[in-house]
Amino acid sequence: MTSELTTRALGEKAQRMIDALAAISASPENLTRLYLTPEHKRAAELVEVWMREAGLSTRMDAAGTMRGSLPPGKAGRSGNKALLIGSHIDTVIDAGRYDGNLGVVVGILAVETLKARGVELPFGLDILAFGDEEGVRFPVTLTSSAVVAGVFDQKALDVADEQEITLRDALVAFGGDPKRLRDEAYQRPSVLGYLEVHIEQGPVLERANEPLGAVTAIASQSRHRIRIRGEAGHAGTVPMGMRHDALTAAAEIILAAEEIARKDKKNSLVATVGHVEVMPGASNVIPADVRFSLDVRAANDKARKEAVEAITLVARKIDKRRHVVVGVETMLEKSVAECAPRLQKAIGTAVTAIQGKPARSLMSGAGHDGQSMVHLGEFGMIFVRCRAGISHNPNEFVTIDDMGLAVEALVGTILELAKQETAGR
Amino acid sequence: MTSELTTRALGEKAQRMIDALAAISASPENLTRLYLTPEHKRAAELVEVWMREAGLSTRMDAAGTMRGSLPPGKAGRSGNKALLIGSHIDTVIDAGRYDGNLGVVVGILAVETLKARGVELPFGLDILAFGDEEGVRFPVTLTSSAVVAGVFDQKALDVADEQEITLRDALVAFGGDPKRLRDEAYQRPSVLGYLEVHIEQGPVLERANEPLGAVTAIASQSRHRIRIRGEAGHAGTVPMGMRHDALTAAAEIILAAEEIARKDKKNSLVATVGHVEVMPGASNVIPADVRFSLDVRAANDKARKEAVEAITLVARKIDKRRHVVVGVETMLEKSVAECAPRLQKAIGTAVTAIQGKPARSLMSGAGHDGQSMVHLGEFGMIFVRCRAGISHNPNEFVTIDDMGLAVEALVGTILELAKQETAGR
Repeated sequence: MTSELTTRALGEKAQRMIDALAAISASPENLTRLYLTPEHKRAAELVEVWMREAGLSTRMDAAGTMRGSLPPGKAGRSGNKALLIGSHIDTVIDAGRYDGNLGVVVGILAVETLKARGVELPFGLDILAFGDEEGVRFPVTLTSSAVVAGVFDQKALDVADEQEITLRDALVAFGGDPKRLRDEAYQRPSVLGYLEVHIEQGPVLERANEPLGAVTAIASQSRHRIRIRGEAGHAGTVPMGMRHDALTAAAEIILAAEEIARKDKKNSLVATVGHVEVMPGASNVIPADVRFSLDVRAANDKARKEAVEAITLVARKIDKRRHVVVGVETMLEKSVAECAPRLQKAIGTAVTAIQGKPARSLMSGAGHDGQSMVHLGEFGMIFVRCRAGISHNPNEFVTIDDMGLAVEALVGTILELAKQETAGR
Repeated sequence: MTSELTTRALGEKAQRMIDALAAISASPENLTRLYLTPEHKRAAELVEVWMREAGLSTRMDAAGTMRGSLPPGKAGRSGNKALLIGSHIDTVIDAGRYDGNLGVVVGILAVETLKARGVELPFGLDILAFGDEEGVRFPVTLTSSAVVAGVFDQKALDVADEQEITLRDALVAFGGDPKRLRDEAYQRPSVLGYLEVHIEQGPVLERANEPLGAVTAIASQSRHRIRIRGEAGHAGTVPMGMRHDALTAAAEIILAAEEIARKDKKNSLVATVGHVEVMPGASNVIPADVRFSLDVRAANDKARKEAVEAITLVARKIDKRRHVVVGVETMLEKSVAECAPRLQKAIGTAVTAIQGKPARSLMSGAGHDGQSMVHLGEFGMIFVRCRAGISHNPNEFVTIDDMGLAVEALVGTILELAKQETAGR
């Protein structure tokens, strides 16, 4: 048995592991590691080495997820269950090094720490290094966690990447097995829950000067495409009263979306217009056609749907008042994935003890593997402060100390759950 | 002497001439005729044939303007002056056939009509077919009329087109003479005034159901570039209260510009945002950088400047309130070119007599050669209704009847001025 590391030493070890993973990339110039690529394989193999060093038995599953297992140390109240701990080792293009990877590293270091302390857990621990959370290579996402959770849609095997390689063929080439995906799902009764440590990817913890937070839910989200058709005209010759300007109509909707979201702080509502096209786009032509994206997220489906309805209602009114044609299309709609109160509480207790001030509860506006795992059972997430909320960018940064605290928090949460399993809930 | 044509026959002849000019293009697929190109030369040569048929003596000037002259028929009160009548035969890319060309055709047909009626004018008539009103080939505009008016800036000779041919070299290749441009200017005392017939390029006459209108002025105009720098962020993870969204700030300014313009109908104020770039432009990223154009025009410089100031003030306030950085740059500023009251009145009298209802006065929001010619002396413009206000587009359309009426209106205006010259103002 190795001796227990200090929090600082855990952080330093996490940094070394993060850096080793960051060196595995498709490009020498930046960090790019897509699902089922040779660099994904190399990263998974490095994770496997660490898992074995931590005493886990390992195997690559049929979807390319590296799984490391530790059997229960003793019998628990719930029987022979496993607590799943995971995150992803795929990245976006020109990525930061902490997103996803940190959760896998922290999971392995938590196992090492528990072993160093000689803890015997009343449940098994499975560390999962997923390969497809970002959804960059294929037009699907959360493939690996969907397989683990038993909610993978077989039709997704036919989607193809930009080189027209299907997911099915890519799995085979990687050494996976598209035919065995169904068999890879956990049975619900065998799972105690799913925990994930992830960088916040937002500015809330940094502003609050807190290293860690307990996630309440992964937001309810929808994406829409709004199109406004007005009438082109010469910027000099069409009087204001005769215009059907698609852009000024769009500006009203953009401000209305902001206002509606601002009013609902309680439900952590956010609305974003990030992509805008104005046509024909000449400085001396009144815009005839404006298309823009609308992304709405909230802590629950009801608040999100009500906001979308309110924005759509504003659009309909503008439509009539300005004599333009407004179309609103829904491109994507994802229900909220709520964190289990029991796991939130265990995380809160652990984080509060570690950071010496009450754990903040916050919504995850970004998507995560928990959106698959919630279908399998309870899930909980620990957020780690990241600098300026920057993510999906080489400037993504987490301090060594915060990474050490994240390991402590995960260990603390596991011990909280072990206490419950031993003493009864 | 040919016999006088009916209004309908004048319109039909105008249509044939317009169609003959429209067949002269750089492309077999559309109408594109840029300054100092082979097709410009061919169009000028066709105009020359028509000018000679109408009894005008012709010459191509050093800037490529085809000029046709008719000496005074008898002595006038103002001495041996010339009334200049012109428009342009260059076009935009994929143009309509009436813009510019109609004014040259109507000028020639007016001469023919006056001759057919046996009218002896107390001033000369010079018909000018300018070659550069659209400013498409070179990054300068109104070259030909600036030369005629004596306001050509010699530095413009060094500008180059996309093939890096300078205006100087292009003039030489065309048969012009960059060294003689200064000598081509009219002497102010020799000019009675400048008249131009042009399609409205806007919807006002069509909505009013009137074929013709008297222009009050070519608008005061300025073009600006506005840039807003905010802060990028994840659409899901940055709460509304922590955002510095460059796009919502832009939306406020766009709506303010519209509102400010709407309020000043008296000065025919118009404000247009036609070009917008939103960066980074992803649907899940809060916009960090938005750039947009602002085009402001009004019937006088004061109203236009006040509007720009008001819009800039709004931008400055938004800047502070939203903690974004707003920059406003002025790219172009053109003073109003006011039509002479005497010419407006003569046009008004002629148009009222022809259309049987009072002539409407309207501002020209678009630029025209009158912006050069105003420096030479009085200028006046007759606007001709065009379908749906569409211009700079193959769908540009003027009816045959309206073209006939335009010839009559120009003839009537010339006769009004002749009356003044004979009887005293």
